[in-house]
Amino acid sequence: MMPEGWLVDGVASGALPVDDRGLAYGDGLFETMRARDGRIALWGFHLARLRCGCERLGIPEPDGATLVNECERVLDGDADAVLKLVLTRGSGGRGYAVPHEPRPRRVLTRMPAPPPPRPEGLRLHACVTRLPLDPALAGIKHLNRLHQVLARTEAEAAGADEGLCLDAAGRVACATAANVFAVVDGALRTPSVDQAGVAGACRAALLADPWLGPTLRVGALSPLELERASEVFLTSAVRGVQPVAAIGGSTFVPGPAIAAARAALARTGFVAGPA
Amino acid sequence: MMPEGWLVDGVASGALPVDDRGLAYGDGLFETMRARDGRIALWGFHLARLRCGCERLGIPEPDGATLVNECERVLDGDADAVLKLVLTRGSGGRGYAVPHEPRPRRVLTRMPAPPPPRPEGLRLHACVTRLPLDPALAGIKHLNRLHQVLARTEAEAAGADEGLCLDAAGRVACATAANVFAVVDGALRTPSVDQAGVAGACRAALLADPWLGPTLRVGALSPLELERASEVFLTSAVRGVQPVAAIGGSTFVPGPAIAAARAALARTGFVAGPA
Repeated sequence: MMPEGWLVDGVASGALPVDDRGLAYGDGLFETMRARDGRIALWGFHLARLRCGCERLGIPEPDGATLVNECERVLDGDADAVLKLVLTRGSGGRGYAVPHEPRPRRVLTRMPAPPPPRPEGLRLHACVTRLPLDPALAGIKHLNRLHQVLARTEAEAAGADEGLCLDAAGRVACATAANVFAVVDGALRTPSVDQAGVAGACRAALLADPWLGPTLRVGALSPLELERASEVFLTSAVRGVQPVAAIGGSTFVPGPAIAAARAALARTGFVAGPA
Repeated sequence: MMPEGWLVDGVASGALPVDDRGLAYGDGLFETMRARDGRIALWGFHLARLRCGCERLGIPEPDGATLVNECERVLDGDADAVLKLVLTRGSGGRGYAVPHEPRPRRVLTRMPAPPPPRPEGLRLHACVTRLPLDPALAGIKHLNRLHQVLARTEAEAAGADEGLCLDAAGRVACATAANVFAVVDGALRTPSVDQAGVAGACRAALLADPWLGPTLRVGALSPLELERASEVFLTSAVRGVQPVAAIGGSTFVPGPAIAAARAALARTGFVAGPA
């Protein structure tokens, strides 16, 4: 990795103190963002979720202007890249007890942009790993991601592009690194994220879209409902809207809802195609 | 912190590569151990749990002899210390996907020994934070510890010594950094750890004790049963057996079960008193 691809608290560095609570306990948050032509896609949604996570975990919020400045530095003119921001509670405290005056630590990394979405759609593996019902941590993008690692490992072993996870109650939750949307009986639906899953920045942008948002139904989605969906797609702040071609043996074809979601995302300025 | 107090993969270093998966996802395990006079208390139980965690997460097992050697180096003759071993899946992989040939990373840290257990017993706060039912990760000592951080924060705010956590089903699970034992209707009981909580090394030693072990009942323990317990105590590989004096408004006095647990722990060679 190139040394200019890392910034720790604003300093070019590839090293983190080993007593950081992010390592010790996953005590922190992250955002994975797409940057095109010097602009961070969905920035407002990323910052809002990060702030929401800080409030939930009691981590002091970082300064937005500092983050933007550091993102620009780490981008270093790269026209199409992925930026990953990790915000930890920093070092200190006794065991699980948090420090009285936490000094959060920022780790920014630049990574290559992924290939553009495959027009034929993704093949999803239905994962055995279930996401626990966890209202305390659901929705925010914290660093406790072992379930996603386990589910993704299942998907890789199955030769699939992504893994679809149910929650412990058997409802559709999300893909390992994306939110799921489906058109069921003519209605565009996406699971709520108050018990499991992450409130994705791309998902938030679709919900906030003045045309698409009001038509979206957020709530429980069962595997049987997903099975008979007329369209299924994933959303991700890095990859945008990606059609799903298959989940296990069930197949789907892209339709007008996917086009509408892409149009809504494009209204935010998001560009998912080739650089 | 003293530089000799850290070892990363056997090299004296206080720095971890920022792309380590332990930081990114909590993708790893840890053990917190007590070392007295150059001997790691409960070593066999720590190593067994670490191996169990490695198998569960698909992380290659570390070599036991290497770990012992590195522990001795980091101890550096300290007569009474706490050793923390973090074993991560290392760097690499694409996002949540694990590297095909993972190279786990070992981080060893030496910390001061805690003060001896208070004879008057601990005051516990009954935490609002509940541990999710999570059979995939329950029992092992993984790095996804945000619930413990949140619960411990509650306990600190309440001015308590420790926090007692229920699981999402309302059963007694554990303290934030210790297992809980209680004598209810004359029987010594401790919660199972197949849905939530950690299979503590000290707990494992009590279960394995030829005299105490067979008398122990492992299974669901309700808050009401705990409330009417004649004795309550916590176990920890670092602090040993600690009597509980109070949980919220309920009070307890130490009795023969605590003495028996201490005797069982002493048979392993564990010494919790002053150095």
